Amino acid sequence: MTNYLDSNKQRFLDELLDLLRIPSVSADSNFKGDVRRAAEFVRDKLTAAGLDKASLHETPGHPIVYAEKIVDANRPTVLVYGHYDVQPADPYELWDSPPFEPTIRNERIYARGACDDKGQFYMHIKAIEAMVATDGLPCNVKVMIEGEEEVGSDHLGTFVKENRDMLKADVILISDTSIISNETPSLEMGLRGLSYVEVQITGANRDLHSGVYGGGVANPINVLCEMIASLHDEDGRVTIPGFYDNVDELSDAERAELAKAPFDLDEYKRDLGITDVMGETGYSTNERTSIRPTLDVNGIWGGYTGEGAKTVLPSKASAKISMRLVPHQTPDEITEMFTAHFKSIAPAGVTVTVMPHHGGMPYVTPVDSVEFEAASKAFEEAWGKKPIPTRGEAASQLPLCLNRNSALNPFLWVSVWIAMPCTHPMKVMAFLTTIKA
Amino acid sequence: MTNYLDSNKQRFLDELLDLLRIPSVSADSNFKGDVRRAAEFVRDKLTAAGLDKASLHETPGHPIVYAEKIVDANRPTVLVYGHYDVQPADPYELWDSPPFEPTIRNERIYARGACDDKGQFYMHIKAIEAMVATDGLPCNVKVMIEGEEEVGSDHLGTFVKENRDMLKADVILISDTSIISNETPSLEMGLRGLSYVEVQITGANRDLHSGVYGGGVANPINVLCEMIASLHDEDGRVTIPGFYDNVDELSDAERAELAKAPFDLDEYKRDLGITDVMGETGYSTNERTSIRPTLDVNGIWGGYTGEGAKTVLPSKASAKISMRLVPHQTPDEITEMFTAHFKSIAPAGVTVTVMPHHGGMPYVTPVDSVEFEAASKAFEEAWGKKPIPTRGEAASQLPLCLNRNSALNPFLWVSVWIAMPCTHPMKVMAFLTTIKA
Repeated sequence: MTNYLDSNKQRFLDELLDLLRIPSVSADSNFKGDVRRAAEFVRDKLTAAGLDKASLHETPGHPIVYAEKIVDANRPTVLVYGHYDVQPADPYELWDSPPFEPTIRNERIYARGACDDKGQFYMHIKAIEAMVATDGLPCNVKVMIEGEEEVGSDHLGTFVKENRDMLKADVILISDTSIISNETPSLEMGLRGLSYVEVQITGANRDLHSGVYGGGVANPINVLCEMIASLHDEDGRVTIPGFYDNVDELSDAERAELAKAPFDLDEYKRDLGITDVMGETGYSTNERTSIRPTLDVNGIWGGYTGEGAKTVLPSKASAKISMRLVPHQTPDEITEMFTAHFKSIAPAGVTVTVMPHHGGMPYVTPVDSVEFEAASKAFEEAWGKKPIPTRGEAASQLPLCLNRNSALNPFLWVSVWIAMPCTHPMKVMAFLTTIKA
Repeated sequence: MTNYLDSNKQRFLDELLDLLRIPSVSADSNFKGDVRRAAEFVRDKLTAAGLDKASLHETPGHPIVYAEKIVDANRPTVLVYGHYDVQPADPYELWDSPPFEPTIRNERIYARGACDDKGQFYMHIKAIEAMVATDGLPCNVKVMIEGEEEVGSDHLGTFVKENRDMLKADVILISDTSIISNETPSLEMGLRGLSYVEVQITGANRDLHSGVYGGGVANPINVLCEMIASLHDEDGRVTIPGFYDNVDELSDAERAELAKAPFDLDEYKRDLGITDVMGETGYSTNERTSIRPTLDVNGIWGGYTGEGAKTVLPSKASAKISMRLVPHQTPDEITEMFTAHFKSIAPAGVTVTVMPHHGGMPYVTPVDSVEFEAASKAFEEAWGKKPIPTRGEAASQLPLCLNRNSALNPFLWVSVWIAMPCTHPMKVMAFLTTIKA
């Protein structure tokens, strides 16, 4: 098999460069034809790799490419996820080489999408091709490459729901994340979930003049600020009753394992341009952003926001508030708790509405699961050292999509997901080989 | 003099109707020519009334009309303020009669600007005309009628500053307010001042993904909400140190006098569509909105405010905050206190900027002043009962304009202002006659 990789190396590279030349910018409708061309390119390479049913599935946006190879219905099935669309490349003049004319410097490919995500998912296709062409696949493989990851994966959720049987798998392999560094390979084992709501506070039935009414009636902005402020206590903990009830408290051993990831607080602060970090008392910055649930206001608006000064006492004020969830919190339960609590703390004289937006389940791959061990072993083979498990970084939209309309629970059978940055076909092969067990 | 009024009544009315036919909508540039035509109309009527120097003073916006009659340099001088511009009249189809074709029904004139403010200031001109034509003016009179009141009086401040000698007066007579009712005539004796600031909280040097950073770094919106919430205590009092130090605490007798104004709390709540009022403990709604200083957020914005959900952890959040001031608070001192306090309560990890907008001095006309007594007597002559003194309602922009750039203090010589709703020339005459003493 190594022979196959060696003897086809140049062709693999040339094909990837061809794919990188296609400006598949999903955000810009001027590139709509190019986005489709990239999808067709991927479909053809999936066919060439020996996969069955390679085809474009239309959506109201860009098509999703799907292919599969079922070798034995009794063996495990791996669903590989990736995306063939890229971010816009403007401003072009800041590129050292043209974004859609890939060039190789110091053994690195420079092009829009080389890392995110064409390079990563193409590696999977070539690993599958090599295995099919030589010893055969050790397990069943399904490949789903979408074209809207960079614009929010708006149609992935529906596609997944409508094709639950086709996509059924034992493990999802996502290669759309990063590693800590080449010296410190790492494996994403968890992603926080999400509960997202929009709130509105209404006071008087019209905007008032603050000179006439100021001090006499509730100001919805002041009230909203007070209600939001009360959602955290002095230790930075969320005050919603029951919020932490189902939170998975990690053991000291687990926390020690996570703490192995190198982290330079000074560098972190320097990068963000802040003088200090902030968060829940008793947890490190890495823990605060990975194993702990949080509440953040993502947007707020009300009253006069234009130039200069207007002394309006507004009728309404609104905010978008999201909570990051950890196992075993669920978006539905947390959204319900938030709504009940937020309404309960409203003072007399205002009305409160809470509108839930989407939610997403938190995901964790147990480090002692066969899937995590398979991924870990694959990394070790490629890097010569075990990867460090990390949690909390946002990977692709996939886990969130899987959980939209969670009442339907169409994916309870997806027991595990692994986010695996893939820079060499060997890793993929090692993973697939191990997973078959 | 009563004869003069009686014999010219129809002409006075016809002239007012002519003025009301001019669509002097200051907000809409399509009416620019009409606004100027109204100014010229007013100028000509001031000349016809026997006033000197009647002329248009150009501004970058609409012109200001000024005229004066100095009868004796040793007598007091009254500056009459009004505005000849009107609010837009759309939607036209909701008018029972066309807004710029005045019609009289049940002895009331229906037209845009009939009350606000053409009817009111025109009464002053006709009172002056009658006095000049018969017994002569008992005191000096200056008349300043602007054309931008409905769009914020942007150029009045500069005009007043540049013409301080010309405008010098002992008392300003403003007829641009309302009375409680025809059964309960009232006189505005006070207006709260204003300190207006814009604040900005900056966290990280860029917008962050809340999934990656949420819980680990300061969220400027959350921080802003907490800081704003802390500006009031549980009794609804402003927590800025020193904020109440110079506040004029009224005596029980003074509070009892103000409490004479009829007030129906149920009707107030019904009108505003609220279930309850809110404000500083220990004060009535009327007191909260008149004799007590307050702090209101007039606008707030930050993060994602569009449709749907975005999990941004924003770099910045902003708010416009204004404080209503009472005697003897000053905008400069309060702005300074606010700035120092607001910066002092910022947590580590964020930076705070405070940008002062404009300010305005609080005004109160002492009820035992000769000017208030003159106005009170004038009302009594017209209505057969004493007016109730009221405070806190917004009158015209004039007092605020007078105080812009208060460091210059060009109007310290304006010792008193009276806001006097004027529905009959007799009241004006009685006022002017009394003020001469």
